[in-house]
Amino acid sequence: MNHYDDLIAFERQTQALEQVAGRLGWDQETMMPRGAAPQRAEEAEALSHVLHARHTDPRLGEWLQDIDEASLDPVGQANLRHIRRRYDRQTRVPVKLAGELARLTAEAQGQWAEARAADDFAGFAPVLARIVALKRDEAQALAAGTDPYDALLDDFEPGATGAELQAMFDALRPRLVALRDRVMGAPEQPAPLTGRFDEQAQMTLTRDLAAAFGYDMAHGRIDKAVHPFSSGSGLDVRITTRTSAHDPFGAVYSTIHETGHACYEQNIDRAYLLTPLGQGVSMGVHESQSRIYENQLGRGRAFTGWLFDRFRDAFGAMNVNDADAFWRAANRVHPGYIRTEADEVQYNLHVLLRFDLERDMIAGKLAVADLEEAWNARFEADFGVAVDKPSNGCLQDVHWSVGLFGYFPTYSLGNVYAGCLFKALTADMPDLDDHLARGNAATVTAWLGETLQRHGGLHEPKTLMTQACGEAPSEAPLLDYLEEKFAALYRL
Amino acid sequence: MNHYDDLIAFERQTQALEQVAGRLGWDQETMMPRGAAPQRAEEAEALSHVLHARHTDPRLGEWLQDIDEASLDPVGQANLRHIRRRYDRQTRVPVKLAGELARLTAEAQGQWAEARAADDFAGFAPVLARIVALKRDEAQALAAGTDPYDALLDDFEPGATGAELQAMFDALRPRLVALRDRVMGAPEQPAPLTGRFDEQAQMTLTRDLAAAFGYDMAHGRIDKAVHPFSSGSGLDVRITTRTSAHDPFGAVYSTIHETGHACYEQNIDRAYLLTPLGQGVSMGVHESQSRIYENQLGRGRAFTGWLFDRFRDAFGAMNVNDADAFWRAANRVHPGYIRTEADEVQYNLHVLLRFDLERDMIAGKLAVADLEEAWNARFEADFGVAVDKPSNGCLQDVHWSVGLFGYFPTYSLGNVYAGCLFKALTADMPDLDDHLARGNAATVTAWLGETLQRHGGLHEPKTLMTQACGEAPSEAPLLDYLEEKFAALYRL
Repeated sequence: MNHYDDLIAFERQTQALEQVAGRLGWDQETMMPRGAAPQRAEEAEALSHVLHARHTDPRLGEWLQDIDEASLDPVGQANLRHIRRRYDRQTRVPVKLAGELARLTAEAQGQWAEARAADDFAGFAPVLARIVALKRDEAQALAAGTDPYDALLDDFEPGATGAELQAMFDALRPRLVALRDRVMGAPEQPAPLTGRFDEQAQMTLTRDLAAAFGYDMAHGRIDKAVHPFSSGSGLDVRITTRTSAHDPFGAVYSTIHETGHACYEQNIDRAYLLTPLGQGVSMGVHESQSRIYENQLGRGRAFTGWLFDRFRDAFGAMNVNDADAFWRAANRVHPGYIRTEADEVQYNLHVLLRFDLERDMIAGKLAVADLEEAWNARFEADFGVAVDKPSNGCLQDVHWSVGLFGYFPTYSLGNVYAGCLFKALTADMPDLDDHLARGNAATVTAWLGETLQRHGGLHEPKTLMTQACGEAPSEAPLLDYLEEKFAALYRL
Repeated sequence: MNHYDDLIAFERQTQALEQVAGRLGWDQETMMPRGAAPQRAEEAEALSHVLHARHTDPRLGEWLQDIDEASLDPVGQANLRHIRRRYDRQTRVPVKLAGELARLTAEAQGQWAEARAADDFAGFAPVLARIVALKRDEAQALAAGTDPYDALLDDFEPGATGAELQAMFDALRPRLVALRDRVMGAPEQPAPLTGRFDEQAQMTLTRDLAAAFGYDMAHGRIDKAVHPFSSGSGLDVRITTRTSAHDPFGAVYSTIHETGHACYEQNIDRAYLLTPLGQGVSMGVHESQSRIYENQLGRGRAFTGWLFDRFRDAFGAMNVNDADAFWRAANRVHPGYIRTEADEVQYNLHVLLRFDLERDMIAGKLAVADLEEAWNARFEADFGVAVDKPSNGCLQDVHWSVGLFGYFPTYSLGNVYAGCLFKALTADMPDLDDHLARGNAATVTAWLGETLQRHGGLHEPKTLMTQACGEAPSEAPLLDYLEEKFAALYRL
């Protein structure tokens, strides 16, 4: 047995344990009795110690040094790339710094929740400042001479750089601001869907929706959770969703979104099961799947036509009573401070704001003490509205308080990638709308499975997207799609 | 930090990981998508490797050697006793033998299932013979000069011996056989409950039942499983149950049985959380809890009176239409080959048969080739009926095929212990039936919690039972209880 086989055998067990940890997280959000939380924290920590010890096991270092990369096939080389990247990252950060960050962010999450509830940014700023200082140290350690922000970004989007994203987002922003202005100023605003919608019927509908998109229930399940997520890889990929009596679109679009993530995981080549290639390759690529399912497909005119009939089956008569009005209701652009509630037009503006601010914080150009002011100024510039309180501004997201820097931009990168994929898809599948109008979105999953999903972690994200789309990814397809769609929707 | 603190800190993480493994097992039986099985097998195996490495970690051996037991308080000494016992057992068995047994029993489970389905004992006998041979080797290694069967028993009932159980069971058997004869020959046999019973209403009832016995839903939950079980310790103790449209007693008594196991785990002193004392101390003591809940309490005249009203609330009119007849229906003694379907009178006869045969196999007095004949002869002697086929005889239980020898007797020991506890309980709580007649069995859980459950693994099983009952445990209270109960039931 040579060292590559040793490495893969060891990694396979590690991957299996990662799946166990993921399933424990799923249980915590769906099934765990409420009184079990303190014990669960110890269970999760014990498992995380086991995983950390495996990720930094000295044998990995020896094997990685000994293996002759050139002797491996492309799958072997990709496995090696993933394992080496993780090993290098885990061993570059000093143990003391990693420990401090873990402790600080564990405490900060609760402090952030309290500060948000009290709308007290000043009280939270010293904690956040300490986190930013430690993240800058971590970024320095990881970067090993290259750009520190890029080193953080690399955890979520391997190979991407801040400069490259900046160029993309700078092109995105003005056209989105302009589109937002035109849409908000349109004389004819769509009516929202109102009324009460049976929550049991919503749950039944979510199962139909997941099936419509080709989600495989023999290797998954759907449950409720406060914040929907998808979880697991390979043969066990679970979705969660939520229902609300007054907002059935919440259940519908969070289900379709998570179905996108889940189909990606389910459709990865089974040969990669429990190896580093057996998972979605990056956050941006993952988000491209959830977003194209949710927006380009799920909120399109063709699919909402089918969905309108399902709504009438499930809920009876509604205040929105034709398919066109239903489509418009599902795509309503509405003012709001909160990223997670934003529509397709405004969502990326929320993200771009965070990207610019976090890059400046990591570069040392923006002090945490000045964050609130910077946030509010930028928000007013892009959204035309003044932020009224920190919980609607810079305290709204948990990310920074748990040390997630370099994560936000992957949301918009995912949207950009979804735009590129949708352009390629429509070119490749002339009868796409016929399928969607019959609620058959599984054909799209088959297309995405073949062009993108099956590859798992084989290719680097940008290479994968370029292959799938037949051209290098850019923001242009997303912008063209949004401008065309919302011009039609708002009769601009 | 001295070595005792090192030991306990290490053990606490191990216990947390054991809980994770248990929860993974729960998920497999309740939530796991059916297609996930092959991946789950790898996940469970990876976690089991982690646990085995911790159980045999050389540091444990060093710490155990260094710690001055006399310097510890009783809790410390009990912790040490548990950890040392496990460490000694895990390190005494040669790695090669343990591996062979693990592989063989993993395969044998499927082979047993096939043999049972085909009623082919001869085909399975060579596999079972190989298992018995390896178990004898294992027992030799564990026994280190003492009795090999006792060494196997020690895994499930620390401190018990085969000779002592033999004496107890030999006293049990003739009176049970005689009682069975009298009951079966009684002129007036109780009518069974017949009809269709809504399964959703059964599930609602199971929640009421668990609550009636004091099960804490803030630290537990109830789901369905093919074979009901309880799972977990400390703050997260889950129950499973089953429903059947034609047999609501199945849901009722499997729920009450599992509630007994679960209340035991839930009521252990929280100071012992995630330590070796934080779990039920033995299989026998565990079974005493499930059995006293199920039989002495749940099938008693007082509680079934309350249950009869709940049945009428849940299901409407029934063919059994007064509380006395309902009590008799719930306690019907019926002929049958299968241990798991046996009633209170015959159950122990099934177990005693297995105990005698497995002791003889481990002692080398009974060859596996002769097992079927020995089983059938004994069955006819005790039950007055000839076994018709191996699936109703020596192939009915999975235990031996997965290497469980020394496990069966703990079922009957649990019943004996339940008899002793019930004697002490009725002496201590003169108004017991008043509580039970109002469906308030939680007072009994409070009594058991105080006298027995809270101690977890602090005392050795026999010491614990002696303390709880105020006298050394014997079979007499169980026999007296059964003879009195069934004389009244069958109007003998």
